[in-house]
Amino acid sequence: MHEQADPATTPTPNHMTPDEFRAEGHRMVDAIADYMRTVESMPVTPAEPPGSVLDALPDRAPENPEPWDDIHRDLDRLIVPNLTHWQHPGFFAYFSCNASGPGILGEIASAGLNVNGMLWSTSPAATELETRVLDWCRDAFDLPEAFTGNGVIQGTASEATLIALLAARHRARSADPHAAERAVLLTSTQAHSSVIKAAMIAGLAESPDHHGPDTRVRLIATDPDGSMDRDDLARTVAAVHAEGREVLMVSATAGTTGTGATDDAEAIRETLERAHESEHGAPWRGWLHLDAAWLGVAAICPEHRTVLAGARVADSLCVNPHKWLLTNFDCDLFWVRDRDALTNALSITPEYLRNQQSDAGTVIDYRDWQIPLGRRFRALKLWFVIRHYGLEGLRAHIRRHIAWAEWFAEQITTDPTLELVCPRRAALVCFRLVNATDEQNKSLLTRINASGEIFLSHTAAPGDGRHAIRFVPGATSTEFRHVARAWEIIREAAHKTAAGPANR
Amino acid sequence: MHEQADPATTPTPNHMTPDEFRAEGHRMVDAIADYMRTVESMPVTPAEPPGSVLDALPDRAPENPEPWDDIHRDLDRLIVPNLTHWQHPGFFAYFSCNASGPGILGEIASAGLNVNGMLWSTSPAATELETRVLDWCRDAFDLPEAFTGNGVIQGTASEATLIALLAARHRARSADPHAAERAVLLTSTQAHSSVIKAAMIAGLAESPDHHGPDTRVRLIATDPDGSMDRDDLARTVAAVHAEGREVLMVSATAGTTGTGATDDAEAIRETLERAHESEHGAPWRGWLHLDAAWLGVAAICPEHRTVLAGARVADSLCVNPHKWLLTNFDCDLFWVRDRDALTNALSITPEYLRNQQSDAGTVIDYRDWQIPLGRRFRALKLWFVIRHYGLEGLRAHIRRHIAWAEWFAEQITTDPTLELVCPRRAALVCFRLVNATDEQNKSLLTRINASGEIFLSHTAAPGDGRHAIRFVPGATSTEFRHVARAWEIIREAAHKTAAGPANR
Repeated sequence: MHEQADPATTPTPNHMTPDEFRAEGHRMVDAIADYMRTVESMPVTPAEPPGSVLDALPDRAPENPEPWDDIHRDLDRLIVPNLTHWQHPGFFAYFSCNASGPGILGEIASAGLNVNGMLWSTSPAATELETRVLDWCRDAFDLPEAFTGNGVIQGTASEATLIALLAARHRARSADPHAAERAVLLTSTQAHSSVIKAAMIAGLAESPDHHGPDTRVRLIATDPDGSMDRDDLARTVAAVHAEGREVLMVSATAGTTGTGATDDAEAIRETLERAHESEHGAPWRGWLHLDAAWLGVAAICPEHRTVLAGARVADSLCVNPHKWLLTNFDCDLFWVRDRDALTNALSITPEYLRNQQSDAGTVIDYRDWQIPLGRRFRALKLWFVIRHYGLEGLRAHIRRHIAWAEWFAEQITTDPTLELVCPRRAALVCFRLVNATDEQNKSLLTRINASGEIFLSHTAAPGDGRHAIRFVPGATSTEFRHVARAWEIIREAAHKTAAGPANR
Repeated sequence: MHEQADPATTPTPNHMTPDEFRAEGHRMVDAIADYMRTVESMPVTPAEPPGSVLDALPDRAPENPEPWDDIHRDLDRLIVPNLTHWQHPGFFAYFSCNASGPGILGEIASAGLNVNGMLWSTSPAATELETRVLDWCRDAFDLPEAFTGNGVIQGTASEATLIALLAARHRARSADPHAAERAVLLTSTQAHSSVIKAAMIAGLAESPDHHGPDTRVRLIATDPDGSMDRDDLARTVAAVHAEGREVLMVSATAGTTGTGATDDAEAIRETLERAHESEHGAPWRGWLHLDAAWLGVAAICPEHRTVLAGARVADSLCVNPHKWLLTNFDCDLFWVRDRDALTNALSITPEYLRNQQSDAGTVIDYRDWQIPLGRRFRALKLWFVIRHYGLEGLRAHIRRHIAWAEWFAEQITTDPTLELVCPRRAALVCFRLVNATDEQNKSLLTRINASGEIFLSHTAAPGDGRHAIRFVPGATSTEFRHVARAWEIIREAAHKTAAGPANR
């Protein structure tokens, strides 16, 4: 055996002591508090061309420790100015990704404890707090009792949709393996791109364009308002049956990303059941997933509870507190009715993960409810958010954004240069110039965003496919004055654009 | 239109002001600093039975805000005592999940900024910092030049293996769609469970047991040391070819979870190429993925660089700084040679995500390099860790754990009641009682962990399948005195167990 260094005296890396961490932790918290105070004065989106940050960073990692003064300097001068500020009060693009004080505190606690809750036994409190907080949300959203104890936090709705599809496939295989391998996924043309991405990952589609007759993904047309067209659904189901195939899963949406439209899940289930009954004389055993990633949290207000009406007939659903419920990214809530279908689709137990409690089947091991094995302690931040705000505080958060969107939509309807593309949905307003080309509307959006004060994004309108501008208040820091200011900027830009040269 | 509340005066939720956040942030940082100081005095694993935390939490969410004093009280009394303390200096189980001061600071910064770097345009600095820091690591690990600019942070190695499989499938389909749908995944019986889980998700396997002849997953036997048996590989490839199938991907391991064994990736590629050449007279176009989740970070030390020798012939590889490189969970580094195969397998662009830079193809949109759409700003914590420690500090971290494991293995070999199950690999030592039954070794592990001072886990030895106890120093807080104390506890428990009643 070779001569060995004395293991008691091997060089020690420069770990932070608890007190050094305390001091640097305070400094970092101060930096974030300062960011909260000053973000409003920054442009929402950066202006530097691609490669600017990359080129400004050294080619190679430092060999030796660098002081925190330098790290903070680079954070302030190089990183922060080149971010798109999702926490800016003028961020009205996409859907928000709203941090909050309590949410950040949850991330600090989670990072400090840094447990891996893959199994119940690898951190019992992480699993049990998650189960309890998901039950709180089930109750607060007035979801059916059947989802009690069957909630889990996923990273994103993309993962939620994927595991729903895997659970659906597992259940279908148990019933009829041959049919399951040909069964199809249905969703609308306005559904989120993650539905097709899930089909690509699971092996149902080879590419984003791989859908239609004789494939395993069918896109249902929508009504002009963006919700699934029930007649086209019925025709498609008939065509699927005519090919000798079954419907594996329907992914319905409550609040589409484009325009906030909601599919009628109850009508969808009825259509599927009727078609299946008439074709096979037996009930439909497929899976109905409800993607309520953005809109679902509005169900926390009794007056908006119907946004999750589809949950009554859904096999699974997901809702993202990281979009619009003050909980830091990432936090997607997923509920499943048939827990075994999910865990059987995802469970695999090597010897090194076996333990007494799992073997006894008396505990939840959330690794079997998700794609990855390891998992962060994400329930903490949701727990902190709910306790800090109380349900009433969360309702106030949702309500004022909806009130602001309502006000904003009224300004659009009363301005002769602008029109709504579709009715306002919750806090989402889609608008465009009256009698204008797509190019003119693109110019308008460019002009609006060039202000640096606000940032909006766009979609293709479900009815005519034309360019529509989306306005969604959702950031934690946004106040009514920011919405009013946004309207000033938008109105002025609209008038300038409308008065400009016609479509070239 | 119904009468609307004045949007300027809708009730305001009780958001934290920046100064309130500052105060509560300091308090939470203090709580973490105190945890760092005191975790050593806690039992590593909790003792309460399942349901204890669940039952102690209220049934319903609070309607109104609760004070932070109450939240901290519950955190201290209910949550922390019921965690498995992965940051405890006596945590020697599984592989570590090591937080560090700089890593936690990175999580604080990431949570405070809370940007979503799904697209370059949705936070340029988040994308460009990630690209640069991955290039730093490529250089520090001495990976082939071909991986430059082709790195990305995934949540976990499970996701890395899954996307490698999806990229492999995409490339195979481009060459021969029909062959691709029958092509098989090869990995060893000692590979991580996530490889089969990836096959289940992607649709290659219906269940964990769905492997063997006429299936799309084949498990290759290992040598007694746990590395892939080259003869069995050659036989399996011949059998696959005899079925008229191709090899889609081989997932090789550098540092198995059970015993730390490393497959000879270069020999694997040679075997595949030779077999393919003789069968088809053309080069093998399959995919070789290298799972170096735990062991890979040791390549940061020049004397351990060979642990990633397989990268020279790999199409992709992954390494987890969140296990053993002081970066908070989650942080898995993934590199791919053929970037297009990956992004083409995962890319889908709805209108609402289109933007000028992506359309021009001049930027990286990391959403196309991963399962989810949204993504946290995880590069910050890795950047902080590298800058705080410098590469030399990180090397010291790895080196002393290896020195301690070497010392520990020597104690095992010089104790007559214990033996090594296989040679020590890096910081992983597998041992068992001499001439004892599996039951006796299970009793030994129970006795060791009952101390509350240390926590070890087990595996099935690759040679004989028998119960083996794993010892892996890896926690940031562990010092040599904890390793020495662990040895005292283990030796005493071993002597008691060996002296106890024989196998019942």
